Amino acid sequence: MRILFVGDVMGSRGRDMIKDYLPQLKTKFRPQVTIVNGENAAGGRGITEKIYKGFLQAGADVVTMGNHVWDNRDIFDFIDSAKKMVRPANFPEETTPGLGFVYVQVNQLKLAVINLQGNALMGQSLANPFHKADRLLKEIHQQTDLVFIDFHAETTAEKEALAWYLDGQISALVGTHTHVQTNDARILPNGTAYLTDAGMTGAYDAILGVKPAKSIERFLTQMPTRYEVKEDGRGILSGCFIEIDDTTGRAKHIEPVLINADHPFGFEQ
Amino acid sequence: MRILFVGDVMGSRGRDMIKDYLPQLKTKFRPQVTIVNGENAAGGRGITEKIYKGFLQAGADVVTMGNHVWDNRDIFDFIDSAKKMVRPANFPEETTPGLGFVYVQVNQLKLAVINLQGNALMGQSLANPFHKADRLLKEIHQQTDLVFIDFHAETTAEKEALAWYLDGQISALVGTHTHVQTNDARILPNGTAYLTDAGMTGAYDAILGVKPAKSIERFLTQMPTRYEVKEDGRGILSGCFIEIDDTTGRAKHIEPVLINADHPFGFEQ
Amino acid sequence: MRILFVGDVMGSRGRDMIKDYLPQLKTKFRPQVTIVNGENAAGGRGITEKIYKGFLQAGADVVTMGNHVWDNRDIFDFIDSAKKMVRPANFPEETTPGLGFVYVQVNQLKLAVINLQGNALMGQSLANPFHKADRLLKEIHQQTDLVFIDFHAETTAEKEALAWYLDGQISALVGTHTHVQTNDARILPNGTAYLTDAGMTGAYDAILGVKPAKSIERFLTQMPTRYEVKEDGRGILSGCFIEIDDTTGRAKHIEPVLINADHPFGFEQ
Amino acid sequence: MRILFVGDVMGSRGRDMIKDYLPQLKTKFRPQVTIVNGENAAGGRGITEKIYKGFLQAGADVVTMGNHVWDNRDIFDFIDSAKKMVRPANFPEETTPGLGFVYVQVNQLKLAVINLQGNALMGQSLANPFHKADRLLKEIHQQTDLVFIDFHAETTAEKEALAWYLDGQISALVGTHTHVQTNDARILPNGTAYLTDAGMTGAYDAILGVKPAKSIERFLTQMPTRYEVKEDGRGILSGCFIEIDDTTGRAKHIEPVLINADHPFGFEQ
Ligand SMILES: [Fe+2]
Ligand SMILES: [Fe+2]
Ligand SMILES: [Fe+2]
Ligand SMILES: [Fe+2]
Ligand SMILES: [Fe+2]
Ligand SMILES: [Fe+2]
Ligand SMILES: [Fe+2]
Ligand SMILES: [Fe+2]
Repeated sequence: MRILFVGDVMGSRGRDMIKDYLPQLKTKFRPQVTIVNGENAAGGRGITEKIYKGFLQAGADVVTMGNHVWDNRDIFDFIDSAKKMVRPANFPEETTPGLGFVYVQVNQLKLAVINLQGNALMGQSLANPFHKADRLLKEIHQQTDLVFIDFHAETTAEKEALAWYLDGQISALVGTHTHVQTNDARILPNGTAYLTDAGMTGAYDAILGVKPAKSIERFLTQMPTRYEVKEDGRGILSGCFIEIDDTTGRAKHIEPVLINADHPFGFEQ
Repeated sequence: MRILFVGDVMGSRGRDMIKDYLPQLKTKFRPQVTIVNGENAAGGRGITEKIYKGFLQAGADVVTMGNHVWDNRDIFDFIDSAKKMVRPANFPEETTPGLGFVYVQVNQLKLAVINLQGNALMGQSLANPFHKADRLLKEIHQQTDLVFIDFHAETTAEKEALAWYLDGQISALVGTHTHVQTNDARILPNGTAYLTDAGMTGAYDAILGVKPAKSIERFLTQMPTRYEVKEDGRGILSGCFIEIDDTTGRAKHIEPVLINADHPFGFEQ
Repeated sequence: MRILFVGDVMGSRGRDMIKDYLPQLKTKFRPQVTIVNGENAAGGRGITEKIYKGFLQAGADVVTMGNHVWDNRDIFDFIDSAKKMVRPANFPEETTPGLGFVYVQVNQLKLAVINLQGNALMGQSLANPFHKADRLLKEIHQQTDLVFIDFHAETTAEKEALAWYLDGQISALVGTHTHVQTNDARILPNGTAYLTDAGMTGAYDAILGVKPAKSIERFLTQMPTRYEVKEDGRGILSGCFIEIDDTTGRAKHIEPVLINADHPFGFEQ
Repeated sequence: MRILFVGDVMGSRGRDMIKDYLPQLKTKFRPQVTIVNGENAAGGRGITEKIYKGFLQAGADVVTMGNHVWDNRDIFDFIDSAKKMVRPANFPEETTPGLGFVYVQVNQLKLAVINLQGNALMGQSLANPFHKADRLLKEIHQQTDLVFIDFHAETTAEKEALAWYLDGQISALVGTHTHVQTNDARILPNGTAYLTDAGMTGAYDAILGVKPAKSIERFLTQMPTRYEVKEDGRGILSGCFIEIDDTTGRAKHIEPVLINADHPFGFEQ
């Protein structure tokens, strides 16, 4: 199975990058499943139904989220019917709307797509993602061995640790949240594809997608200045491509996907 | 000026990687200045005088540090005489031994090498690195326009923000601390070379250089288990190579350096 | 039912305060149940079997713990047989030895004593204490309506919030961990006795029980200096006394207990 | 010199408590200087010019602030002319409007009132408050030995440490920010009056002044629900009264001030 993943889409600049490049990426990689992280799609904070449906129309099969999932309150109006969106599965079971994982059917095969959030340095306390993954996999493995996890977390330690912990039990674990792609795509010893962070999709001349002056101001002044997403100028699209052995569910290949002015599409390698 | 930087060296496995590959990297890149981050060189925690001198003998011109600088208490015995070591310059001026920056002489040229530490999510509160950089550069720019900063910080936001803030005033800002190399080496609009994190140097089949089982145990149990640095097995060396225009002090080129089983030396590109 | 609670006992100075004053406090308050927080009893870090048994001999019925529960590794040798000790109930069920709550029998009555840990600003991520309390109380309420919770947490917000959330479902919630007694003992509208923090028991001329110079040094230098518990000099004992209506399980009375040089025992009010 | 301090005033309920009780407190304590912390006076978030002037009219001589100082953006319009307001002195000197300390003249005597903010667990990084206090006191001690510090900080450790560090150099250090009064008012060995936290002034049946349901919801759901300040119902006023020896600048007396339904004014002791 061939999977294309696109990291945190930041605002309209990010959505435009999806529209501009997803068709070409599909031509190049011929993915059977396309997954897009949309936690920052609506002006950097959350997502709306219109944007969610726009992602599906643009070719996404599943939209994953993260800590910003609730920032745009529109989500509460449509999350119950959003059957192709996953928010972190380890939010409290007692109170959280929406799904923590979904299945995508590809011919006779089923891919489970899970969203989990880290606890280290995240400023929120969700259920332990290690134990939560155990419980989810007990259920999911009765359906399929093909499992993709978008692990939305801050620290490299927690991301690597969860990947090594689940190595051999899932097909791939890809990190999101830091908005900077890491250079460590690899297949772990027992067959799980891994990338610490897929990176973000939005404005290239920006700080995590935010206008530099606004982000810098906060560090200089230590005052609560409001971020402004950069909506114009040069763009960046970040993600990865993964190929899974359908029989075993283990990964055969993982490579980063990166499009920006320094890495123009069509000129890679 | 040609500069080679090697990221956080973890324990003996990392020191062996330096011994094994620094000669070859020097042959390949012909750096005039070689800088090594040694904050984890002594069993993952700090550095000793013997290791510090070993780095110099192996070909380092400057050893940079980070939040782990004081972990091995040997440091207090030799830091006063360690003229080629820099610890984060923004530790309190009133109480901190050692140097925050040093000059390296290359023929008629002088390179200033600064070490700074971030404040965001670091669990320590040092002087604001943005304002500290301003004060240091006011002094340094009277001597030279060639300036390299190892910015030891957790969040991608603080790293990108400092780089954009100093863009055009320094030659290069390279991040350390997360132990995972990022895939975003670039030259910013005003000429500063930038890489969010250089990555680490040590054991490849490890979690930030630590034995996977030990790191995982902490996340599973939330108990204060002791990390153990992985000292054997396959290795990784991470860093970057930068070329600076000697006249302007601006960067002409930056590229990541990465050696591991998936990227064997001599087989790149 | 009359309950005496003593807050975080710090090292030998704290243990001496227990020996010196618990008999007199028992004479004064005639508690039917005495509970002591022992998370710092062994040199400020954890507890040993000898100290645990010493508390029972000195008159404690239950020893509660907190985030420091695992600091002294002796605990792993005796916690399985320590039937009168509770560690935070929201540590991972899958991996944590010991008990999260115990029952104390007083004639025909049963008091459940629960230990929970907060998640806000604690540097650890345990199960959500609000949801965990719900699950525990579903079980405990089949046995008794008399419930005491030692909520070990950093922020006043999380402590007040859990108390208001459980108001009317438990007899009392008393906070620990900050080592400073708060001046807000009260009975909430639905009958739960509440005190944000009971305070600590140990050296009075100290910073949370630690030698002032050592604690100050860390703030001045931002270096990882080792704390040293103050073991001599003037002492402090902090806690509270609570009286519960046996029929309803609701609190009738709560008052702080505080003994130090500025509040000598026997001279209160 | 007699000083009355009132802790964090939360919204209109807090402002009403000031109006209702400050006259009576003045009658009782006859303070020569009255200081009010106003960081939450405007609906829980910051302060407006109207509220600031209202405090002065109600009898405050100085208004202190804290981490919420910038939350209401009106502050930027009047802080330059607000000569009786202090915001944390350790915000960056390069970028911060307003004053970090002021002098209050009482006959021939001068009291310096300083506002400082802690760094531990505050989510902001300001200049080290210990070193900043040293620099301020070097200047202030040329004018007066009568010094009051409102130290706005989260952890009991940082508050106690700064007080012990400055013991004998200042008249009093009183903490704010946690909104819960502590029960540890004392005079330290070298004459500095100390109270870890003065507590808050606002609604009594509330969580730090916030409607309980709203605060609880955040802990239950881990979603970013918006706090709502409780503006009605029973009130609480918290603070302390301090008496200083005019000759030495050392404290002679400190006692908590607490008015609420469980401690009605006029019925103390
Ligand atoms: Fe994001
Ligand atoms: Fe995120
Ligand atoms: Fe580090
Ligand atoms: Fe490191
Ligand atoms: Fe604790
Ligand atoms: Fe404690
Ligand atoms: Fe406040
Ligand atoms: Fe505050």
